[in-house]
Amino acid sequence: MGEKRTPSGFLLKQRAFLKLYLITLTEQERLYGLKILDLLRQEFKPYGYRPNHSEVYKALHDLIEDGILKQVKQKKEGMKYQEVVYYRFADGGYEKAKLYKRQLKAELDRCAALIRKAIEDNFS
Amino acid sequence: MGEKRTPSGFLLKQRAFLKLYLITLTEQERLYGLKILDLLRQEFKPYGYRPNHSEVYKALHDLIEDGILKQVKQKKEGMKYQEVVYYRFADGGYEKAKLYKRQLKAELDRCAALIRKAIEDNFS
Repeated sequence: MGEKRTPSGFLLKQRAFLKLYLITLTEQERLYGLKILDLLRQEFKPYGYRPNHSEVYKALHDLIEDGILKQVKQKKEGMKYQEVVYYRFADGGYEKAKLYKRQLKAELDRCAALIRKAIEDNFS
Repeated sequence: MGEKRTPSGFLLKQRAFLKLYLITLTEQERLYGLKILDLLRQEFKPYGYRPNHSEVYKALHDLIEDGILKQVKQKKEGMKYQEVVYYRFADGGYEKAKLYKRQLKAELDRCAALIRKAIEDNFS
């Protein structure tokens, strides 16, 4: 209290938003190391949002630290030295991921409502 | 360029959101110095958002710096020493405010679409 900064609870943070997408891409077995940034940038391009490299990799790092994801390295077929890096759920990570997604759903619904309110309050 | 941080265009910033509300409250002649924070906190309480003092006053300060609002001080009726502080549009401020609101409307629509997309992509 006192000097401590308390979160104001404004809109969802970018980090959480990206973690949510990384979890869903893992569920869909679509999370490959080299392609993550391109894939996300392509998805969000029509929405004027261009996630940067460091934000995406911090989100990925968080998920590994949280025990949700793990990195898997596999040799490319027929290639002696080339490895493909991809991501899977860590042991027990899938349960944690489901919990995180439930929290994020509530958070996204809250943000949608706050934005709807702002549109109504200021433009009607 | 190069070292410069480019904005990623994620969700609307809190400062802009508050400036929008302060403009609309001025249009409605409801912007009184002492009541601003209480009024905003009450509005957003059901949405889990509690703007803090410094964010609100920075937004107000920005609007004055931008030439959109001006502060008006008036003696309280029958009170010799008490002043009421409120806000009105500065000269030419109303036109600037309308332009700002148009920009914010587009920005809110963009954010609403981005959140809708996240709900669809991750929860269906």
